[in-house]
Amino acid sequence: MTARAILPRVDGRRLLERLRALAAITATPGRGVTRLAYSAEDVTARELVARWMREAGLAVAVDPAGNVVGTRAGAEPGLRRLATGSHLDTVAEAGALDGAYGVVAAVEVAAALTAARIRLRHQLAVVGFSNEEGARGTPGMVGSAAIAGHEVDLSIVDDEGWVLADRIAAAGGDPARLADAAWPPLAGFLELHVEQGPVLEEAGVSVGVVTAITARLTLDILIRGRAQHAGTTPMAARRDAAVAAARMVLAVHGLATEGAVRVATAGRVEVRPGVRNVVPGDALVGVDLRDVDDAALARAVDLLRSAAAEVAAGTGTDVDVLVRSRVPAVPTDPALAGCVASAADRLGLSRLALPSGAGHDAQVLAALGPVAMAFVPSIGGVSHAADEATADADLVAGADLLLHAVLDADDLLDGPARPERSAADPVGAALVPPGARSCRNGERGR
Amino acid sequence: MTARAILPRVDGRRLLERLRALAAITATPGRGVTRLAYSAEDVTARELVARWMREAGLAVAVDPAGNVVGTRAGAEPGLRRLATGSHLDTVAEAGALDGAYGVVAAVEVAAALTAARIRLRHQLAVVGFSNEEGARGTPGMVGSAAIAGHEVDLSIVDDEGWVLADRIAAAGGDPARLADAAWPPLAGFLELHVEQGPVLEEAGVSVGVVTAITARLTLDILIRGRAQHAGTTPMAARRDAAVAAARMVLAVHGLATEGAVRVATAGRVEVRPGVRNVVPGDALVGVDLRDVDDAALARAVDLLRSAAAEVAAGTGTDVDVLVRSRVPAVPTDPALAGCVASAADRLGLSRLALPSGAGHDAQVLAALGPVAMAFVPSIGGVSHAADEATADADLVAGADLLLHAVLDADDLLDGPARPERSAADPVGAALVPPGARSCRNGERGR
Repeated sequence: MTARAILPRVDGRRLLERLRALAAITATPGRGVTRLAYSAEDVTARELVARWMREAGLAVAVDPAGNVVGTRAGAEPGLRRLATGSHLDTVAEAGALDGAYGVVAAVEVAAALTAARIRLRHQLAVVGFSNEEGARGTPGMVGSAAIAGHEVDLSIVDDEGWVLADRIAAAGGDPARLADAAWPPLAGFLELHVEQGPVLEEAGVSVGVVTAITARLTLDILIRGRAQHAGTTPMAARRDAAVAAARMVLAVHGLATEGAVRVATAGRVEVRPGVRNVVPGDALVGVDLRDVDDAALARAVDLLRSAAAEVAAGTGTDVDVLVRSRVPAVPTDPALAGCVASAADRLGLSRLALPSGAGHDAQVLAALGPVAMAFVPSIGGVSHAADEATADADLVAGADLLLHAVLDADDLLDGPARPERSAADPVGAALVPPGARSCRNGERGR
Repeated sequence: MTARAILPRVDGRRLLERLRALAAITATPGRGVTRLAYSAEDVTARELVARWMREAGLAVAVDPAGNVVGTRAGAEPGLRRLATGSHLDTVAEAGALDGAYGVVAAVEVAAALTAARIRLRHQLAVVGFSNEEGARGTPGMVGSAAIAGHEVDLSIVDDEGWVLADRIAAAGGDPARLADAAWPPLAGFLELHVEQGPVLEEAGVSVGVVTAITARLTLDILIRGRAQHAGTTPMAARRDAAVAAARMVLAVHGLATEGAVRVATAGRVEVRPGVRNVVPGDALVGVDLRDVDDAALARAVDLLRSAAAEVAAGTGTDVDVLVRSRVPAVPTDPALAGCVASAADRLGLSRLALPSGAGHDAQVLAALGPVAMAFVPSIGGVSHAADEATADADLVAGADLLLHAVLDADDLLDGPARPERSAADPVGAALVPPGARSCRNGERGR
């Protein structure tokens, strides 16, 4: 019997089966997974996860925000809660893993602990957050915001004309009691997620240890020109909003290719009236800028405003750059991230430190205590698309990693473990180098 | 009594009243005139025009294509028909004049002839064409195509999923008998229209004498990149369809600003999935190119294909340039256009020769015989918009111009007029220089 053989493991086969079962709950069969927040599919998925949680020995409740939370008592009732999970909702025609993977893996971690009769020192909470993605044009991370005790604007109207409060109520939540969803401070929160980018795959590495969730700034560039007949209006008499929009798209792109920010995307481009034979009178360019440096994003807005002034002058249009949202960078907790790194090392998984370019519920939970994240590789870096995928072996390894990171965090957080851990020491000091158990000293990746 | 006083005139007040009455028939009250072809509003407008035609002494019929045609017998039954008119349908939220003006003015010309007891040598046909604009994404000029005896693809599906044949039938047409709408060859066709551009206004001129209806080429540029996460995909790993689309929009614009074609417009720009946080995976740029030189448009397509290859290589996308339609340039008939010029001169209206950048039913009617067009100034050059406008005086002057151009054409076409013109010579040779009656020698504008 080798050292590896007695390390606790999740039920990998069941993990994969459950991911497939969740993926089958979609509004667009054959065209990826569409489980928009608060939809019938979202509720069905939550009920299935609640059942799995109960099978894993968790006490389950759906909170007023529609989050599903399964808890398991800890050996030391005075300690704060240790939590893990991710979200259950998806964008339209998404893949099977974004969000769902972190929830299912967390359930499997709880199930593995229960099966191994391991009682943690901390209460463990497994959570499936609601509306992380921002369904139908609403801001996302609504469920985690409620848990973090943040104020949520329930009056927001989504793209289909529904008020957020009504969506939440229709999905079995209770918007009037949203404040009751708030949690007390946490010992720590761990989120496992697919990378959604190509970095790990290209590096040939199994695990990403997230250093920070990058700041994100969104803006809309509004362009007002003049709709004119495409056949009868001489070029010199035009105020063409599409030409101005094209120049602004390239200015946005240039922000990142010239190094002002890490990534810059003009993902939304709309031109009105939008027919071939009319010079466009109005245009909108929706922009997403990300960087681990909040100040870089602020400078980028200034650069875009300068570009807008030039484009306006050159095209005879009015060009306004309006900041729509700012989410500051959230560094992960070095000690908790160290637990991810030490778990990877113990399991023999190669790892890499990297920032998360995507937003995650973990950044919201940071308001309650230390957070850390682990990534598994995304094949081809594909995300928010039906062909999003991660190798089965990586999915199982990631869940094992989460299990061990939870065990390490349970040991590390709130002082040293008491001797009365319930089962045989599953990460036996005799089997791993002593240093590996001190997550605080763990490397942050390579 | 001056020479001007006895020139026949249309009823200018009634012309303006009728334009207002037609403008009130709209699906978007308060937001311009929306009288999409085959809509209830379109049918209501046609019925109103038919009533006015009958009041003008015309025999009225609606043909299988939904065109309304009013006829008036000529003194010389062996002669081909002389026709005038325009279209009754509009784009969405259009102005009151595009199309309607040419129909109402033609009805007033007929009414003025009847009131003055003037019998023309030629049978006169006044026509309100159906579906010139291309309702709901269908190709336009359907009514005039049926009159010209062209084949019409009745199986085309519009943007709302209706088949064209069903639209025509629902609007009181008879798609099965569409061939019966065809006319025999014409003596001539005159169309009066608003300029839809700023040239006449800027030149301070009352009348445009159209030299040619420019060739038009439409194309779609299809771009296939890869939809990727905007936060997690490094810039170097992107295949951003919006960046490629932006470059192609500027390439299209450059065709005209660099003189390869007269005007070039990227009026439709669509980017998918079209949300801020996803690198666009697909894009479509719909393009409209116009020039009086057919060969210039062909060369422009080659230039765009070269640009597409460069853009594809630079962005990692696939870029295809697909020609969707080609309408060759249609020169107007010098003799018939000369009648417009001579009429302007007789009425003391300043005039300018210019090409029509817009397409018109006249270009389709050219298959049946000589065509000519007259323009009146568009304030600010505005077209296909609710604030399209022409000064009342210009509208009345244009209708008078049409009346005199019809009289001149009636004299000119098919040999010299016989002496038995019914009423007193309304353009009496004693009152105008003899040369003015010979439209063939008329200047083509200044």
